[in-house]
Amino acid sequence: MDPACPSREVLRRIGERWTPLVIEALSDGPLRFTRLREAVGGVTPRVLTATLRGLEQDGLLTRTIFAEVPPRVEYELTPLGLSLREPIRVNRTWAETHLGDVLAARDRWDAALA
Amino acid sequence: MDPACPSREVLRRIGERWTPLVIEALSDGPLRFTRLREAVGGVTPRVLTATLRGLEQDGLLTRTIFAEVPPRVEYELTPLGLSLREPIRVNRTWAETHLGDVLAARDRWDAALA
Repeated sequence: MDPACPSREVLRRIGERWTPLVIEALSDGPLRFTRLREAVGGVTPRVLTATLRGLEQDGLLTRTIFAEVPPRVEYELTPLGLSLREPIRVNRTWAETHLGDVLAARDRWDAALA
Repeated sequence: MDPACPSREVLRRIGERWTPLVIEALSDGPLRFTRLREAVGGVTPRVLTATLRGLEQDGLLTRTIFAEVPPRVEYELTPLGLSLREPIRVNRTWAETHLGDVLAARDRWDAALA
């Protein structure tokens, strides 16, 4: 619980908006940017680029440029990135299991204010 | 992977900066605001208040006011909030296990840019 502990910051990476979706999209193998963006859905190129940069800095994925014309760029999970699949799966299962409870609680909250 | 799926938003709640720390701090029972803030560490009253409000809206905790002088206010996890402990534990274990790998990757990144 130390506020200065760097694991707090690492923990936040898991919670970033697009991280789980990128990790899931790359779980079956490398993808090019355009295909990755389609798989993630609803993300702008700019934001996806920033997300990928962050994951690359943290060693969770690699960006490989193939010397073709036009150059092909592929994103692929590292073993470290692959290890994130399990916590992300647990989070997703929680969200899907309890989605109805959370939405019902929000409705009660709104009704109490109305 | 549907961008419109509300489970995406519920998923993000888990990933918010202070959520895991609040859930862990309340895991052993209810706390008053001041004690909770001490347990979480490094959070301003304003931000902690907003975090608690969000968790209350989602049905993850309750806020109880006891009619004392001065009034006592306690925050306590609901069963739904308690169910979040497991995914948060898994996330935390991942972060602690792989912290060294992530920090090493960041150092390599910085060195490559230098």
